[in-house]
Amino acid sequence: MYTAGAEVFFEPKKVAVVGASPRPDNLGRAILENLLTGFKGKVYVVNPGYTEVLGLKSYPSVQAVPDEVDLVVVATPARLAPRIVEDAGAKGAKGVVVFSGGFAETGTDEGRMLQEEVVEVAKRYGVRLLGPNCIGVYNYSNGLDTFFLPRSKMKRPPPGPIAVVSQSGALLATLMDWAAARNIGISKAINFGNKADVDEVDSLEYMAKAPDVKAIVVYLEGVTRGRALIDAIMLNVNEGKPVIVVKGGRFQATARATLSHTASIAGSYDVFKEAMREAGALVFEDLEAAFDAAKVLVSQPLPRGPRVGIITNSGGHGVIAADTVTAEGLEVPETPAAIASSLRQIFPDRVSLRNPIDLTGDARPEQYKLVAQTLVKGGIVDSLLLIALVQPPTMDVDETLRTIELVRDDSEGVPLVVVTIGAEAGAKLARALEELGIPTFELPDRAARALASLLHFRQAKDIIKSRGPAPTVSKEAFVRAKEIIQRALSQGRSKLLEDEALELLRAYGVKVADFCVARSEEEASACAERVGPRLAMKVISPDISHKSDVGGVLVGVTPETAVSSFRAIINNVKSRAPGARVEGVLVQRLESGYEVMVGGLNDMAFGPVVTFGAGGLLAELLRDVAMRLSPLSQDEALEMIKATKVYRLLRGFRGEVPANIDAIADIIVKVSLLLNDHNEIKELDINPILANQETATAVDARVIVKRGGGQAVVR
Amino acid sequence: MYTAGAEVFFEPKKVAVVGASPRPDNLGRAILENLLTGFKGKVYVVNPGYTEVLGLKSYPSVQAVPDEVDLVVVATPARLAPRIVEDAGAKGAKGVVVFSGGFAETGTDEGRMLQEEVVEVAKRYGVRLLGPNCIGVYNYSNGLDTFFLPRSKMKRPPPGPIAVVSQSGALLATLMDWAAARNIGISKAINFGNKADVDEVDSLEYMAKAPDVKAIVVYLEGVTRGRALIDAIMLNVNEGKPVIVVKGGRFQATARATLSHTASIAGSYDVFKEAMREAGALVFEDLEAAFDAAKVLVSQPLPRGPRVGIITNSGGHGVIAADTVTAEGLEVPETPAAIASSLRQIFPDRVSLRNPIDLTGDARPEQYKLVAQTLVKGGIVDSLLLIALVQPPTMDVDETLRTIELVRDDSEGVPLVVVTIGAEAGAKLARALEELGIPTFELPDRAARALASLLHFRQAKDIIKSRGPAPTVSKEAFVRAKEIIQRALSQGRSKLLEDEALELLRAYGVKVADFCVARSEEEASACAERVGPRLAMKVISPDISHKSDVGGVLVGVTPETAVSSFRAIINNVKSRAPGARVEGVLVQRLESGYEVMVGGLNDMAFGPVVTFGAGGLLAELLRDVAMRLSPLSQDEALEMIKATKVYRLLRGFRGEVPANIDAIADIIVKVSLLLNDHNEIKELDINPILANQETATAVDARVIVKRGGGQAVVR
Repeated sequence: MYTAGAEVFFEPKKVAVVGASPRPDNLGRAILENLLTGFKGKVYVVNPGYTEVLGLKSYPSVQAVPDEVDLVVVATPARLAPRIVEDAGAKGAKGVVVFSGGFAETGTDEGRMLQEEVVEVAKRYGVRLLGPNCIGVYNYSNGLDTFFLPRSKMKRPPPGPIAVVSQSGALLATLMDWAAARNIGISKAINFGNKADVDEVDSLEYMAKAPDVKAIVVYLEGVTRGRALIDAIMLNVNEGKPVIVVKGGRFQATARATLSHTASIAGSYDVFKEAMREAGALVFEDLEAAFDAAKVLVSQPLPRGPRVGIITNSGGHGVIAADTVTAEGLEVPETPAAIASSLRQIFPDRVSLRNPIDLTGDARPEQYKLVAQTLVKGGIVDSLLLIALVQPPTMDVDETLRTIELVRDDSEGVPLVVVTIGAEAGAKLARALEELGIPTFELPDRAARALASLLHFRQAKDIIKSRGPAPTVSKEAFVRAKEIIQRALSQGRSKLLEDEALELLRAYGVKVADFCVARSEEEASACAERVGPRLAMKVISPDISHKSDVGGVLVGVTPETAVSSFRAIINNVKSRAPGARVEGVLVQRLESGYEVMVGGLNDMAFGPVVTFGAGGLLAELLRDVAMRLSPLSQDEALEMIKATKVYRLLRGFRGEVPANIDAIADIIVKVSLLLNDHNEIKELDINPILANQETATAVDARVIVKRGGGQAVVR
Repeated sequence: MYTAGAEVFFEPKKVAVVGASPRPDNLGRAILENLLTGFKGKVYVVNPGYTEVLGLKSYPSVQAVPDEVDLVVVATPARLAPRIVEDAGAKGAKGVVVFSGGFAETGTDEGRMLQEEVVEVAKRYGVRLLGPNCIGVYNYSNGLDTFFLPRSKMKRPPPGPIAVVSQSGALLATLMDWAAARNIGISKAINFGNKADVDEVDSLEYMAKAPDVKAIVVYLEGVTRGRALIDAIMLNVNEGKPVIVVKGGRFQATARATLSHTASIAGSYDVFKEAMREAGALVFEDLEAAFDAAKVLVSQPLPRGPRVGIITNSGGHGVIAADTVTAEGLEVPETPAAIASSLRQIFPDRVSLRNPIDLTGDARPEQYKLVAQTLVKGGIVDSLLLIALVQPPTMDVDETLRTIELVRDDSEGVPLVVVTIGAEAGAKLARALEELGIPTFELPDRAARALASLLHFRQAKDIIKSRGPAPTVSKEAFVRAKEIIQRALSQGRSKLLEDEALELLRAYGVKVADFCVARSEEEASACAERVGPRLAMKVISPDISHKSDVGGVLVGVTPETAVSSFRAIINNVKSRAPGARVEGVLVQRLESGYEVMVGGLNDMAFGPVVTFGAGGLLAELLRDVAMRLSPLSQDEALEMIKATKVYRLLRGFRGEVPANIDAIADIIVKVSLLLNDHNEIKELDINPILANQETATAVDARVIVKRGGGQAVVR
C-alpha cells in the first residue's frame, strides 16, 4: 500500500503545523518559526484553540485548510496523534511527522498500543509516518526545517554535500550545531526516532536519488529490516555515494539503552559489521572520525592504489601521519633512488627524501609543489598528505595557500589532504583551503585516518562488484528438509535428533559420515557391517543433552564389538538417565582429517548468517570465526575460508598434506542455502567437519529449530 | 661527571643568547624577543658582529659577559657550535641549548662528527647539552621561552598542570599553538631533538619534582635508555603524575622516518608498549585522545572502581558513551531495582532509569542533580558522565552550570566529566565548566575515552605496586653459562651447538630433556642405554641449519636401533651436506606433554625481553605471545602465562589433564635471568618445551650470541 518514499518528507510543497500556539515554550511554535524563516513552500497552522498564530490564520483541523496539504507535522501531546493522522489522511496528505514522545519507547503497553493505533490509521490512508519520538526533517535546498530547536540554541550548518540520517534526534540536532561551528556543509538530515514506519532504509533510498547529497553519515541503534538496509546502502554505493555508519548499542550491556531510547532491539554487532562490509558501508566507532571521513570523501577523488606520499615541514607530524596511514592499511613507499637523487640536487642533506619527505623547519611553500609534482608525475604515489605548518617564518600563509592550490590543480585524480594547525595563522590557512575544497586537519593522525577512508571506500565498492551469484537446490531437497524440520516441530521438539540433523544436511547435499540407526542388537550388528570398519556409537534421545556423561557414546567400535557396545550404551543410559526416552543408537563411520566447523544462525536484524572456523579444540582457542550473510557462492565461501587463521593449517602447514578446501566451501554453500530456505532453523552447528586431502565430511551436527522462525530472505 | 639534571634548562637565572642579531628573520632575535617578553631572569646577548641588539649590549663571547651565565642558547650555524659550547663551559654555564640542524640527523658522517665534537666538549666541561636540532625549553613559571617561533605565529597556551616532553620540535610547537586555541593549560615543555645528551629520561626526572606539573604528555620516536626511561616514568607515577605517551615510528616502514628526523633508531613497538605498561605509562596512538586524557587526569580524582553512571538528555549520546566506556573496559551497571523504583516516583515512564539514565529532551538541570546524588549516595557508581545538552529550551545555560557545580561538590572523590556541544550555548557552558575545573567534551565518545583513562591510570599504579622481587642465580651457574657463550664466540660461532644450548639452559637450572652426545657408534649405543628408552637423534653441526632436510634427525630411536640410526645419520649428512663439519650426534630422550615456547631477545631500547606462548604448530596459528622485560619473579611469570590463550589449554581444557604451570613459570624465570646476566645472548628460543602434569622439559633450543651484546641491565 505504501508507494511513496521519504521524498514526501523532504520535498513537500504545502505543510500544516498542528498544535502550534503563540506560547513561547510551545514546540509547534518553534517549528513554525523555523519554517517561516526559510521554507520555500506554503505553511498552514492548525490549532482549534486559536484563530491566529504568529500572524497566520489558524484552522480548527487539517481538513479545514482551504488548500491541498502534502505534509502534516504534529506537535501535540501523544494521545491526540491518532485523530490528527486520521484528519491528515482524510485530507490527502502524503506524510505525517509525529514529534511527541510517549509511544513504544516508554516500554509501557499503553505507549505501544498508542503507536500501533497511529500506524494502523496511517496505513489505512496510505500516509507515510515519520516518528513518533523524532525531530523530523531538514532540507537546505527548499528551506524545510522541522527541528523544534530554535536557531538561537542550535545553529544550522552551511549547505554542503553531506546528509545525516539518525535514529537519535538529539544526537542529530547537536551534531548539526557542532557541524555549524566547524563549517561542515550538510544539505539534508532526517531523524525517525521510533521508526514506526519510515526508517533508515527509506531515508537511504531517498539519499541515493538526491542530487545534492554526495555522502551519508548514518547513526543507527536497532535494525529491523537488515536486508533492505543492505540494498539501500548498495544503491548509494553504486551511485558513488559513501555511506558512513556509526552504530549505537555495540555491547549487550549497552544495547538495553537503545531499547529504552528508540524502542528497537539491537542485534549482534559482529553480524552488523559483517552486513555493513558486504553492503559496502564504512563503519566507524568514533563520531569525529566519521565526519572527517565524510569531508574527504565528498571532496576528493578515489585513489588508484594504496601508496601515500607525505611531504612535511615537521618530522614528528610526518612520522605520526606515516604510522597512521600504515595502521589503516595504506603504504608509505620509499622514494625510488633515481627520484631521490634527482631531488638531492636541489635539497641539502638535512632534508630527508625517503618519504615522509621532511623539508624540515625552514621549508618554503614552493618546495612542496616541486616535491609533490615529482612524486605525482613519477607515478610513485596514489595520494598526497601535505603537512604545511605555518608557524615558521618561511611559511607565508598566502603563499602556502596559493602553492597548495597549484599542487591540487597539478595532481588531477590524486586525492589530497592537508595538515595545518594553529590558533591564528594555521586556522586562517585551513579556512582558506577548505573554501577551495581542499580538506584540512589540525592533527596528522586525523588527516591520515580520513585519507585512508578513500581507499577503504574504493575497496568497499570492489567487494560489491565481485559478488558471485547464489546457487539453488532442487525442489525435492527443499521438501525433504522441510519435512524433517516440521516433524520435529510437530512433536514439540526444538532440537533435531542426531540422525535428523545428519539427514537434514544430507538432503541439501552435504557429505555426512556414513551412518545407520540401530534400534536393536540385531540392527546394531547389521548397521556396523554396512557402515564399518571403524565406528562410533551414540545414543539418540531427545532427553539427553550430554551423552558422554551418561555413557551414551563409544568410539572405536568395530563390527565385531557392535552388539556388546550397543548393549553397553543401552545399559549405561538406563542406569544413569533412567527416565530418558531412547530412540535408538547412531552407528557412524569414523573419519579422519583436519577438524573444522561450519555454523549458522538467524540474526534478528539480518536473517541467516553462516560461520566458518577451526573445529574441535582449536575452535575455542583460536576464536577466529569468519562470518557471512547467507546465501553465498562457492567463490565467496572460498574467500571466507581464506579469511581465517585455520586456513594456514588447511592449505598444508610445514609440509603437512593440505585439505580439500573446495569440499569445505561446498559445505558452507549448502549450509547457507539450508539456512536461507528454512527460517525455522534458529541455530546450526556442524562440529567437527573432518577435512582431508580427498573430501570433507560432517560428523556431528546440532540443529535448533523454532516455529515461525526468523527472517525469510531472498537475495 | 654529569650531575645536574634538566633543571639547568628550566630554571636558569641568567641566560645568554648567542647569535642574536637585529635582522628580522634571525632565529636568535626571535628567541631574544620571547625572552624579553616574559623571562624573569637576566638576558645577555652574545654576537661579535654587533655592539647592540634590540637595545641590549652585545658581547663578543660568552666569557666576555660581565656576570655569571647559567644557560647559553646557541642560535648560530651548526659549525660554530663546538667553539661556543667551549666558550660556555669555560664561563661555567651549566647548560647549553643548540637549536641548529646539520648534525647527526642529516645521516652524513660530517654531521655525526660535528655532533660528537659538541658532546665531547660539553662533557669535558660538565655542561649539560640540549639538542642539537631542537627548539628548547618553555617554562611558564619563570617566563623562560626559547622557542624561536614568534608569538604572532605560535600562540602560547594558558598556564596549567600539563607538561609536554617531545622529541619533535615542530610537533611540540604546533601542539602548544593548538592547546592555546583550546585553552589547555601547559606549564612546562621541552624538546631535545637529536638528544645528544639530555633526553626524555632527564626531562621526566625533572617533571617528577616540578610542583606545577601534574601530568606529562610525552612524544617519543627512538628510545636509547629504555630502562632508565622506565624508572623515570615510575618516579612520576609514584608521585601520582600520569605519563601519557605517544610513540612515532610504530611500524618498520615508518621507523625509517624517525631515523632521518631525530637520528634515533626506533625499536620494536611491541616491546615499547610492554615496557610502558610495566612502567605504568598510558600509551595512546591518537594525539587528541592523549590530551583529552591529560585534561581529565589533572582535574579529577581516580575512581574507586569501574562503574560509570551516565545521565543524559539525549538517548543517542548516552548509548555512544555507554558503548565507549564499555569498549574501554569500564562498566555501566544497571540501576538496582530499589533505586530505580524510588526514582520512578518522580520521573514519568518515558525516562529510562536503567543507566544510561535518559532524562529525554525535556530534562531540566535540577534532575541531573537529583539522579547524580541518588547514584553516588547509593554507592552504585564510581564515576559520573553527564551529558547536558543545552539545545532544548528547558536547559538554561546558567542553571545547568550551577547545577553541575553542585553535583561536583556533592560527589567528592567521584570523577566527573561533562558532554556539552554546540556552536554558541554549548560552547559557553563548556568554557564556564572548564573554568570550574570540570572537564568537558563535545562528543560522548571522546568524553568516555578520557574518563576511562582515570581507571587505566589507577590500574597502572597497581601494576607497579604488585611487582615481585627478581630472583638471582649462583656464581657457579653464571660462570658456567659465560664459559659456554665465550667458547662459541672465541671459535667465531654466533649460534650455539644443540648440546651447548641445552647445557646453557641446564646451567641456569632449566630442566632439559636428558641427552648425551655420541661421537662414535660405541658412544651412540652407550648414550642410548643411559638416556633411553625412547629417543630422538639429531646431528650436531655448525654448518647445517635445517637438519631434517639432510636426513640429520631421527625420532623414535630405541637403544636397540641406536647404532644403526647413528650410522644412518652420519651417512645421510655425508652424502647430502658433504662439506659440513659434524661434531657428533645428540641422543635425546623423548618427552611428552603440551607444547609451549619460551623465548628471549635483546631489544635495542629496553634490553632483555622474555616471551612465552604456545609452541610447535600452535605457535604460528595462535600468535599469542606474552612478553615481559627481564628479569621477572615466579609470580610475574605465572601472570604472564595466564595472559595467553594457550593457558586455557594448559589448565586442562574440556576435562584434559592440566600441565604443571609452576614448572613452566620456573623456566621463564630462569631464561629471564640468563638473558639478563649475559647480554651476549641476542636471541634465544626454546621450542618446544613439553609440559605435562608432573613437569616441564626443554627439548629444542636455539641460541644466537654476539660479542659485546646488547644492553646490560640490573633491575
